[in-house]
Amino acid sequence: MAMIMTSTLPISDRYRVKTSQLDMPPRLLLGPGPANVHPRVLATMSNPPVGHLDPTFLALMDEVRDLLRYTWQTANELTVAVSGTGSAAMEATLANVVEPEDVVLVGVKGYFGDRLVNMATRYGGDVRKITKTWGEAFTLEEIQQAIETHRPKVLALVHAETSTGVRQPLEGVAELCQKYDCLLLVDTVTSMGGVPLYIDQWGIDLAYSCSQKGIGCPPGASPFTMSPRAVAKLNSRSKPVTNWYLDMSLLTKYWGQDRVYHHTAPINMNYGLREALRLIAEEGLEQRWQRHQKNAELLWEGLADLKLECHVSQEIRLPTLTTVRIPEGVNGKAVSSQLLNDYNIEIAGGLGELGGKVWRIGLMGYNSRPENVLLLLTALEKVLAQH
Amino acid sequence: MAMIMTSTLPISDRYRVKTSQLDMPPRLLLGPGPANVHPRVLATMSNPPVGHLDPTFLALMDEVRDLLRYTWQTANELTVAVSGTGSAAMEATLANVVEPEDVVLVGVKGYFGDRLVNMATRYGGDVRKITKTWGEAFTLEEIQQAIETHRPKVLALVHAETSTGVRQPLEGVAELCQKYDCLLLVDTVTSMGGVPLYIDQWGIDLAYSCSQKGIGCPPGASPFTMSPRAVAKLNSRSKPVTNWYLDMSLLTKYWGQDRVYHHTAPINMNYGLREALRLIAEEGLEQRWQRHQKNAELLWEGLADLKLECHVSQEIRLPTLTTVRIPEGVNGKAVSSQLLNDYNIEIAGGLGELGGKVWRIGLMGYNSRPENVLLLLTALEKVLAQH
Repeated sequence: MAMIMTSTLPISDRYRVKTSQLDMPPRLLLGPGPANVHPRVLATMSNPPVGHLDPTFLALMDEVRDLLRYTWQTANELTVAVSGTGSAAMEATLANVVEPEDVVLVGVKGYFGDRLVNMATRYGGDVRKITKTWGEAFTLEEIQQAIETHRPKVLALVHAETSTGVRQPLEGVAELCQKYDCLLLVDTVTSMGGVPLYIDQWGIDLAYSCSQKGIGCPPGASPFTMSPRAVAKLNSRSKPVTNWYLDMSLLTKYWGQDRVYHHTAPINMNYGLREALRLIAEEGLEQRWQRHQKNAELLWEGLADLKLECHVSQEIRLPTLTTVRIPEGVNGKAVSSQLLNDYNIEIAGGLGELGGKVWRIGLMGYNSRPENVLLLLTALEKVLAQH
Repeated sequence: MAMIMTSTLPISDRYRVKTSQLDMPPRLLLGPGPANVHPRVLATMSNPPVGHLDPTFLALMDEVRDLLRYTWQTANELTVAVSGTGSAAMEATLANVVEPEDVVLVGVKGYFGDRLVNMATRYGGDVRKITKTWGEAFTLEEIQQAIETHRPKVLALVHAETSTGVRQPLEGVAELCQKYDCLLLVDTVTSMGGVPLYIDQWGIDLAYSCSQKGIGCPPGASPFTMSPRAVAKLNSRSKPVTNWYLDMSLLTKYWGQDRVYHHTAPINMNYGLREALRLIAEEGLEQRWQRHQKNAELLWEGLADLKLECHVSQEIRLPTLTTVRIPEGVNGKAVSSQLLNDYNIEIAGGLGELGGKVWRIGLMGYNSRPENVLLLLTALEKVLAQH
């Protein structure tokens, strides 16, 4: 046959940078996520990939779907892992059901409520919002009044607000949504796998989460579910979903029985997600939720001993993420930097309204263990003594 | 403090499926991707995650950007890894620059040209297309005539059509685009890292790729670049990008110097991508392109010996992906299934117009090696003898 083709243009070595072997520091990730993951999850991710239409991978997808259903307590047929991080799954909920001019009512009591407003606006929604001080939750009466005022087609609430550490009680909301023919969309990013959550029994129509918090997997494949009511709204759209990558009318043909190629799934991320979900099924949800609650209470007791104050009142405080008020006169950023630099412990500062006012401490998934609580409290005490 | 909260609702074990340890078959992936990856990439991916705003991860992002620039031969400031698979990076190019009523001219000569049409339509583009038989490429004259007829704001071409195995020559196209003030958008999914490709010298304004083909990493983090001309169009938009997750005006604040939180990057996917790109920098582009060409020619010679015919003429045939005509009377699907079941070798069938007519054989990245060619040819000969 023929000549070996060579490039006819010169190749630039300007960006051919010399890099060394990956050598990341051994962080203990006690911020809002990612959290550390079980060694079994990491080991599983390093298996060689198979094809995205390989019969063995299709069988794995079915297992992932079932295990997501267990963790979320739902029987929804349309339950998948979105091929992106939590924000992609978040956008998927809105992109699929919001049509231009649809009234979307968003409960904003933190940073991620604002993000829902931003995203819903981009998809043409007529967005209305109710707001609450960051650190509080809405009452059922406030939600009812807002629904009666705005008559939304979609009500979006954040179950676990990652910016404030608040758990929004959801009991009774679905009855209102059904009465006023409105879909209930819920952010479960910081609750799934760590906090009691019942998609079906609570009547949630659309939910999203991420892999790197309560589930205990690195970020990159994100839980998404929608109820038959939400699917009906998707199916009755007058125009296709603007977002092709997240269009569930296409994705469901790949994840469902048709197995029609849509995109190449992130194979190794799904290996990891399956293993993390398998660990949840082994432990059991009841035990897992109790473990998160127990270790969070250990943290809260220890913080009180250090005279540090939690920002959220205990009855609506998330066990997965605790916001701690930065004491008067202390530079919060300097403290978290020192924890990172001296002890390899990551905690985070506040976002938005709470920037500079709180630290955010996460105890999620594999990281929700008493030894992590002890180490953090001891290190925090030492560092605070120098500030 | 207080009681351990227990769930008040019953937990269903209906989907608490029993699964065994992950045990995937040792596939040799010689389809259109994913391909097998170097063991160093897999090992790197199993490092424990750090935080997405950790100084060490921010430094890693800078390395990934530089190595993407090298592999693509571009100095574009806006060069990033999109946190999704190749289709997400594809959508990102259109989502950021197409505004409603913008004329978008798409060259369709295969499945992925059609996908560009579909996506551009969703973002409100006034989409025009030129078409060509699947297996051929456009001439410069055809492109010029179409530009003069439609006067597009964006011209979208597929450099390496994954459905046909055609390499679209791009020399001279940029001059036309500049003359008629049009952005040049190019699909490099099956060329980046395996086929000569010069983003800057060829005057490409927007390009996307994937990680799992020529680059040699599992799927899940995808190259994206845009030129200053394309950034200027993004910055002059009258309305924000509809797609929040892929909005480069936000993403550039995370990947750039501001380091503003946007979403949680897929940490371990970026570990893997960095290692795969590092292997490219070690090997060198010239050597890598030659290796792909040489092993493809070995394949083509062997196919000829088996009296099998390539679908694409040699001067525009991709070295990364070869389409082979299924001989009269042979059931193509039965052959590929037997290769998978008897020998753990994956090749793919045709897509769209070429469904049932061709096999697609990939030799990409780590998999472009003579021993893989020999094994495939030998196994194919044995299987064909039975059909």
